[in-house]
Amino acid sequence: MSLIVQKFGGSSVADKDRVMNVASIVADTYKKGNDVVVVVSAQGDTTDDLIAKYKEIDENASNREKDMLLAAGEQISISLLAMALHKLGCPAISLLGWQAGFATSSSHTTARIKKVDTSRLKAEIAKKQIVVVAGFQGLNKYDDITTLGRGGSDTSAVAIAAAMHADLCQIYTDVEGVYTADPRKVPNAQKLEEISYDEMLELASLGAQVLNNRSVELAKKFGIELEVLSSLTHKPGTIVKEKPKMEKILISGVAKDTDIARISVTNIPNEPGFAFKMFSLLSAKNINVDIILQSIGRNNTKDITFTVAKDNGAKAVEILEKNYINKYDGAQVLLDDSVAKVSIVGSGMESHPGVASDMFEALADAQINISMISTSEIKISVLIDADYADKAVRVLHDKFFSEV
Amino acid sequence: MSLIVQKFGGSSVADKDRVMNVASIVADTYKKGNDVVVVVSAQGDTTDDLIAKYKEIDENASNREKDMLLAAGEQISISLLAMALHKLGCPAISLLGWQAGFATSSSHTTARIKKVDTSRLKAEIAKKQIVVVAGFQGLNKYDDITTLGRGGSDTSAVAIAAAMHADLCQIYTDVEGVYTADPRKVPNAQKLEEISYDEMLELASLGAQVLNNRSVELAKKFGIELEVLSSLTHKPGTIVKEKPKMEKILISGVAKDTDIARISVTNIPNEPGFAFKMFSLLSAKNINVDIILQSIGRNNTKDITFTVAKDNGAKAVEILEKNYINKYDGAQVLLDDSVAKVSIVGSGMESHPGVASDMFEALADAQINISMISTSEIKISVLIDADYADKAVRVLHDKFFSEV
Repeated sequence: MSLIVQKFGGSSVADKDRVMNVASIVADTYKKGNDVVVVVSAQGDTTDDLIAKYKEIDENASNREKDMLLAAGEQISISLLAMALHKLGCPAISLLGWQAGFATSSSHTTARIKKVDTSRLKAEIAKKQIVVVAGFQGLNKYDDITTLGRGGSDTSAVAIAAAMHADLCQIYTDVEGVYTADPRKVPNAQKLEEISYDEMLELASLGAQVLNNRSVELAKKFGIELEVLSSLTHKPGTIVKEKPKMEKILISGVAKDTDIARISVTNIPNEPGFAFKMFSLLSAKNINVDIILQSIGRNNTKDITFTVAKDNGAKAVEILEKNYINKYDGAQVLLDDSVAKVSIVGSGMESHPGVASDMFEALADAQINISMISTSEIKISVLIDADYADKAVRVLHDKFFSEV
Repeated sequence: MSLIVQKFGGSSVADKDRVMNVASIVADTYKKGNDVVVVVSAQGDTTDDLIAKYKEIDENASNREKDMLLAAGEQISISLLAMALHKLGCPAISLLGWQAGFATSSSHTTARIKKVDTSRLKAEIAKKQIVVVAGFQGLNKYDDITTLGRGGSDTSAVAIAAAMHADLCQIYTDVEGVYTADPRKVPNAQKLEEISYDEMLELASLGAQVLNNRSVELAKKFGIELEVLSSLTHKPGTIVKEKPKMEKILISGVAKDTDIARISVTNIPNEPGFAFKMFSLLSAKNINVDIILQSIGRNNTKDITFTVAKDNGAKAVEILEKNYINKYDGAQVLLDDSVAKVSIVGSGMESHPGVASDMFEALADAQINISMISTSEIKISVLIDADYADKAVRVLHDKFFSEV
């Protein structure tokens, strides 16, 4: 008998039929003799409806009240799922984040889980209940409802799996697992049987959008085995674990990220500390900088080029123009948001020095120009024109997966 | 400076404009220097939507999960109202039932308030916050969400007023106060300035549907002055208190109740204990009996006629036929659900013995037949054909209020 945590996203419980479908997956797992904790997000459209409601009143509503409002979403989905499980003859009880013991930091809308007090969870499991837990939410030290931000339900599921020493944490989603590339764009993309936490982290941050990064980090930290699988097909998914059993494959995936903008700052004095000052300004406004490229210009000036999330592009330019660039004659800030980052990820590449040149060759053969390059031990990313992003993913996938 | 509790029902916060309207009433009260606690129900259609959602899954869903589901309704309305108050420049914080200290009995969907722990409420008030509390809900000793049943938000408001020793508890609704009769049916119905708790209780139980009975009982018990008024017009409403200042008026109102059925049990043996046994059977199934009439029939038999809520009519007949009547030859159970109870209420009638005969005369003049009569110290009720209910209210109102 195992303890299994199963997490279902909003689209998996979007309507009555989907809720019944999820209930049948959970009931099957339970009837095989397992203890089951289910973590659920708000139903498909509920969160959007609630956001529309508060925006009608105040676009800039307080974060505390936003959390109070949005947390109602999971309250609805957990009770409906518990009812659906009863309908299938299974004992089940729904628990809100705070009832399931989620103590979080105080920061509303972006709270961090500090502790999961498992006493209630364990008591319900001991009564052979299927426990249906509201993902995404917790309680801070002031007894106020908090939410965990983007992908919070994945994180909730992994946190429960860690605190309860679960044998497996299944993340049900609308894809069948982790693929070597986006299967909607690359027809011969292959589902991976297994992938390491580190590779998954690189893929998630590169826009693969399968698993939330925080949840993978947490799973890595506590050694929780994750399975990413579909709630609509009954097929095994992809296992995310420390050391996949299979032979180390060179490349585990190709990903693209088009939610990106490139900013070039040109003709600034070539003196130490200027770049630091510029990035401090952006960091103070919570703007994260990704790839950075610095080059020497004419007349003892330099150019710095970097990327930010597309949403932050205009704001970053404004901050730099107002507070920084106006001090230097001839300095300029340029914004280009028609760029894409395409990356290959694979823990095998550490020991294969030819991977980078293979990647550049494939892109060159396809007449795709590279404007920036960034590498880590298990990843190579290139910045290219957004128009060529899908093509780049295809040619790279062909290059590295044709013989697999 | 006073502490005022204001309660707004679901239709008062049905949409964005209504929420802003309620916020402006609350903000006005606050800006006059008062401390304010606001109790809100779920938005107009939310509760119905949530009920529809669970009925799709299971008509007979568990009461615990129903409470979990429905409590999400007030969570939405309180956060929206707090946001609206912020928008108007007022400090405000929303609190769920449990955060506001509502400890209830365990019985889901019909929980009773056991205690209101006011520590959080007082702390927020001390910070000059307007506190927006979710009505209708609390927490039982198992840390599970409970709801208070019909009219629960009125009860929540009065309970807070009692626990916080509030100076006034205003119940905002969609009528301007308590009237001498239903103003939609009786054009010359008059709004009462004041009414006693007892009269209000009789009127509420008689179908006037202005205030929930439990809330009036609680207000009476703790001597909380209630004001019933409209959230849409800015007019004084009706004050409900122990001893109205005004001169005792003879009759304070005329009410009708058509949610009623008459059951006649005929030809049962005229022996002691039979009626007791019959009503015990009904009481065991939670069927309340209202007016009772017993008469002696032929051959040492008797007939007993009584009224129950319309919903319980068929069930009561079934219970009596299965468990009781089949033992007696010739006994019969008859159901008539086209009846209405029309009543006059007034604390003045105790000292005016002519009121009953005036009432019967007015009905006789209008050719309205009376089938049953019930009286208390401050109330006379008659059972008539439902078709004549509105007419009866009009002629009684004319009789008793023409000279007012």
